[in-house]
Amino acid sequence: MIVSTSDEWRQTHVESWHREYEEEVHIYSCMEDVPKDIREKTDVLITFGNDLTCENVNDFSSLRWVQLLSAGLEDLPFKELKEKQLTITNARGVHSRSMREYAVGAMLHFEKHFHRFLQLKDEKIWERETLVGELVDRKVLIFGTGTIGCDMAEAASFFGMTVDGVNTNGCLKDPFERVYTTEEGLNRLSDYDYVISVLPYTPLTQNIFSHDILERLHPDAVFMNLGRGGVVDEQALADLLRKQKMKGAVLDVFVEEPLPRDHSFWDLPNLLLTPHMSAKSNHYMTRCMNILLDNYQRYRKNELQNMKNLVDLTKYY
Amino acid sequence: MIVSTSDEWRQTHVESWHREYEEEVHIYSCMEDVPKDIREKTDVLITFGNDLTCENVNDFSSLRWVQLLSAGLEDLPFKELKEKQLTITNARGVHSRSMREYAVGAMLHFEKHFHRFLQLKDEKIWERETLVGELVDRKVLIFGTGTIGCDMAEAASFFGMTVDGVNTNGCLKDPFERVYTTEEGLNRLSDYDYVISVLPYTPLTQNIFSHDILERLHPDAVFMNLGRGGVVDEQALADLLRKQKMKGAVLDVFVEEPLPRDHSFWDLPNLLLTPHMSAKSNHYMTRCMNILLDNYQRYRKNELQNMKNLVDLTKYY
Repeated sequence: MIVSTSDEWRQTHVESWHREYEEEVHIYSCMEDVPKDIREKTDVLITFGNDLTCENVNDFSSLRWVQLLSAGLEDLPFKELKEKQLTITNARGVHSRSMREYAVGAMLHFEKHFHRFLQLKDEKIWERETLVGELVDRKVLIFGTGTIGCDMAEAASFFGMTVDGVNTNGCLKDPFERVYTTEEGLNRLSDYDYVISVLPYTPLTQNIFSHDILERLHPDAVFMNLGRGGVVDEQALADLLRKQKMKGAVLDVFVEEPLPRDHSFWDLPNLLLTPHMSAKSNHYMTRCMNILLDNYQRYRKNELQNMKNLVDLTKYY
Repeated sequence: MIVSTSDEWRQTHVESWHREYEEEVHIYSCMEDVPKDIREKTDVLITFGNDLTCENVNDFSSLRWVQLLSAGLEDLPFKELKEKQLTITNARGVHSRSMREYAVGAMLHFEKHFHRFLQLKDEKIWERETLVGELVDRKVLIFGTGTIGCDMAEAASFFGMTVDGVNTNGCLKDPFERVYTTEEGLNRLSDYDYVISVLPYTPLTQNIFSHDILERLHPDAVFMNLGRGGVVDEQALADLLRKQKMKGAVLDVFVEEPLPRDHSFWDLPNLLLTPHMSAKSNHYMTRCMNILLDNYQRYRKNELQNMKNLVDLTKYY
């Protein structure tokens, strides 16, 4: 049994592996460093996934299971992975604690006018006339009711917000008050103070926040995209922000990353822009290890169907 | 029975009063506008408190009860109020929802590096190398375990922080994990990532965050003062921030407000400075009205000792 990883592990993570398992893990800092003979003999591959190509995946002739260290699948060589009938598990759930903090922090950034106060401080101006807001009684609509969306919803509820969700079939999920189908949700966009997308990028979600849809946002609404850039018509969003047809936006993901220097987003004052950081955290790899350690036990018992975070490549999640 | 207020009420608050009571409320937009004869006949006065002076309080010869619309008492004419043996109730509790949002928002402002990302955006720089943080497992010490401190502690616990508190006698209160006496708390300052003061300004709290005490803060700690400015040695704090002996500070209250234009705080980059706004909210007066409506019922039944938020002037809270 050969276990390989194309991502360097910290010493604490090597130790956490060896507290449970005797097997050696072949650790490489990138895919290029994994030697041909190790690729051929690897049963279990641990990777962020974006280093897998339709070419190199064929080097792994003994591969049975891929544990991804990310949640997004869009960079994977779908066709080849399906043909090889591999078991694939991902890191979903690992991002949700960081992302709910990011979402709450970003909403509070707008409610408490922190950006305005930073600017007033630069000008040494004490201004108390403009009333700041509160999350209590605000309404948020979250597109995506997986672990991330649910965890975010729980935090929003804690602060007394009205929290509704959107998923493919409109199936109610705790802790959402209401869950709409995608079409219903898009039709009700104007009812919300905050609209947050944590949608993955799939053929079904591509560009669903089109110009016509974004125009439905309330003039006092903030739109937040923490999922994948490709679900939004970026040019339309930039236009609406420039014309102040909405209060603001929070964008952590973009169609092209790094965001090109000539992109119009950089110049918009009502936009909080972060470089795909919302899921980042010093706890990230530790949480990934917990999934891996758990899954590896089931793998050894040949209980592949009971693994955590199994990915269905036909559904793209 | 004459009820007067020296703060203008919105129509919704007049209506909420009249849904419960027939009595007219004499509404004035400031103390100067309250006529002499109304002052003499007023039984119940509703005020923010900072318009009461040792002179004008004697105009209110029939006064029995003062409902304050604020929580701080430091501007009150203590001696005269004590002599008159008035019942005084304040608005404590009204601030806690806004303030816990502010505290969480400010902590997340630091954890998620929002200030840095706003600056990077101005320079059109995409930088993913510096890892952002997470509230999970961070430690916070809250000075003040009244309604505001407890509500803040509940929110910090929700996000998985270790939450300890400080009060005069070290008496444990839910939801704090540990509560220290003031002396113990000051001795343990270096253990915490966040130190938050929501202390009132009293002879006992004046300047307790002195130079020697502030020097104990961990170099990665953030100090937050949301209570009253006079509990901190401002010059010492400014020095430590300038020398980067701590990560940063969040200050909403100051010894002198408005903060003078030549104060050194304005120039410190690692300081989030807001103009006494942390308790502000569009829900503020509605919550005050709820206390007032409730207390007025007890007042009419002559159950003054059962009123909400009774103030003990000898204890300054």
